[in-house]
Amino acid sequence: MAADGLVLSIDGMGGDAGPGTVVEGVAIAARRWPRTRFLVHGDAAQLTPLVSRHAGLSAVAGVRAAERAIGMEMKPAQALRQGKGTSLWNAVEAVKDGEAHAAVSAGNTGAFMAISMFRLRTMAGVHRPALTAGIPNARALTTVMLDVGANVEADASQLVEFAIMGEAFFRALYGVERPTIGLLNVGAEDQKGHEEIRTAARLIRDRRIDMDFRGFVEGDDICKGGVDVVVTDGFTGNIALKSIEGAARLVGQFLRESLTSGPLAQAGAALAYPALKKLRKRMDPSTNNGAVFLGLNGVVVKSHGSANAEGFAAAIDVAVRLARSHYRDEIARNIARLGAGAETTAEQRDAS
Amino acid sequence: MAADGLVLSIDGMGGDAGPGTVVEGVAIAARRWPRTRFLVHGDAAQLTPLVSRHAGLSAVAGVRAAERAIGMEMKPAQALRQGKGTSLWNAVEAVKDGEAHAAVSAGNTGAFMAISMFRLRTMAGVHRPALTAGIPNARALTTVMLDVGANVEADASQLVEFAIMGEAFFRALYGVERPTIGLLNVGAEDQKGHEEIRTAARLIRDRRIDMDFRGFVEGDDICKGGVDVVVTDGFTGNIALKSIEGAARLVGQFLRESLTSGPLAQAGAALAYPALKKLRKRMDPSTNNGAVFLGLNGVVVKSHGSANAEGFAAAIDVAVRLARSHYRDEIARNIARLGAGAETTAEQRDAS
Repeated sequence: MAADGLVLSIDGMGGDAGPGTVVEGVAIAARRWPRTRFLVHGDAAQLTPLVSRHAGLSAVAGVRAAERAIGMEMKPAQALRQGKGTSLWNAVEAVKDGEAHAAVSAGNTGAFMAISMFRLRTMAGVHRPALTAGIPNARALTTVMLDVGANVEADASQLVEFAIMGEAFFRALYGVERPTIGLLNVGAEDQKGHEEIRTAARLIRDRRIDMDFRGFVEGDDICKGGVDVVVTDGFTGNIALKSIEGAARLVGQFLRESLTSGPLAQAGAALAYPALKKLRKRMDPSTNNGAVFLGLNGVVVKSHGSANAEGFAAAIDVAVRLARSHYRDEIARNIARLGAGAETTAEQRDAS
Repeated sequence: MAADGLVLSIDGMGGDAGPGTVVEGVAIAARRWPRTRFLVHGDAAQLTPLVSRHAGLSAVAGVRAAERAIGMEMKPAQALRQGKGTSLWNAVEAVKDGEAHAAVSAGNTGAFMAISMFRLRTMAGVHRPALTAGIPNARALTTVMLDVGANVEADASQLVEFAIMGEAFFRALYGVERPTIGLLNVGAEDQKGHEEIRTAARLIRDRRIDMDFRGFVEGDDICKGGVDVVVTDGFTGNIALKSIEGAARLVGQFLRESLTSGPLAQAGAALAYPALKKLRKRMDPSTNNGAVFLGLNGVVVKSHGSANAEGFAAAIDVAVRLARSHYRDEIARNIARLGAGAETTAEQRDAS
């Protein structure tokens, strides 16, 4: 690794827009993080000229030849069997080998998760990794929600693990000392929801997990920004996230229809154009790009498949912030509290 | 009951806006449905002058004195113990007694559900009732989602029951002969999601439930209108619904901030005002007001607590459409298919 900075491992072939967009994203990130180096994995014949096109980029970004790439349609199990030697696999492998501090890809999410989990393994004490999403809200920093789809179900301890991981992640990402944490539920009262969630809330309090836990939050708190981190199982989180995306898209469509519905509306829209453009940017998923697969022995960041170069650079930002932070030590400390509590309970049970 | 029309039982005291809004809503509905009669339960000293204020309303709307009302903070269990004789209780009781065809209230949702369930009981073959919500989409008719909170969990058979009830409900509401039905999941492929959902999909197909079942849909399909009826458990449905509400509110807030961010934007907004007003109406929850507590021996419609008179009239529309339809017979027929399949399976098991 570079003695004076970070090394990031990039899947050069992932994403809908192709290697050009990935390399452009790397170029933006290289200007933003001057002491960082990049390993760009993929088809050297395509990647090398793309890298040389950006002045000075060749000095910090090296191309690592990988003959194959994983397509967007490949199933995770197939990716595990046939993925060796692909740009995605090699990007993860560089983290495993200690050659890079983090891997970033805009490729096939399921394959990326499967390969990362297989090669990097979960941290000690973490039973299942979780996928994060950043969601706009009315405040300065986005709401982080997890899990949004790495697992279909989660028991109470796993929900607590997600809370621990999300808390450390938010601090690493935004530098907020004490992020606020909420468990997603159908009501704020203690007796609401199903057993797993109520037990998870009790565990966070009883085991003295070190976090600013605010109890239960509801679906509308996600976009309200009622807490910094919303914790839920991957089934509910995935559906909440996509429901929000669908709603935002619908309002956008209604707005476009309204503002093109007649000459007056069109004139109004023209006058308000700069303001509407700012609104569009505020709602743009690229702004909050960079989903993290938390709980592994290594930093793994997924860029949205349709992200543009700015979006890919935003995903690299997330990787840099995480790789620079102590989030894994913080997770390990809180996971130990969760585990220690479990032992106490077992001892108490043995003693009685 | 009136020989020539419907009788609706109205909780005159429910809702944030008070009896004035409820009675105004009844007056709107009375003009829309001239052969319908109304029983308005509540404080006669308040209600009688409100009814007489609307020309001709006294002829079709009678006030039924109820001394007490159920507050918005009362817990369901408390409402069951102490609710007898309240306007809400009496509104439901009139349906139970066969005096009215449907009950409508803008009051305490939990209390309304508990009292309705206690007095009306579930239909034969229905294990748990379900609460519906109407959600705007880009097409002409709203998406109906259920369950949005009557139950925290649902097993596979209960999900099929919800699908059966939602299908009949959509037809009764909109007159669509073959509504399309989808099960909410984290992906469209057959192997996605947890066991209950996969089993529910198999049951709908194997038991030849009579509906246009389209398989799995995802969170963003709710606002896209990919199917007419989205079926899920009450936990997921509640969170999806509130996530959508929160997202729509956030985009609205961003839009307001954009359009007041400077003189040009303000001028544009002024020109586009009629179009923006139409947009507002399109997103207004009152337009889709009227959640139904499906699966009981009687029609029970919940108006949103903050609905205005037009919104309350929209909830009455839902009650009228349901009370006029054969939705309960249709539900019973499909529930029988589900049950018959279960018996066959049991016989097969015995025979093997």
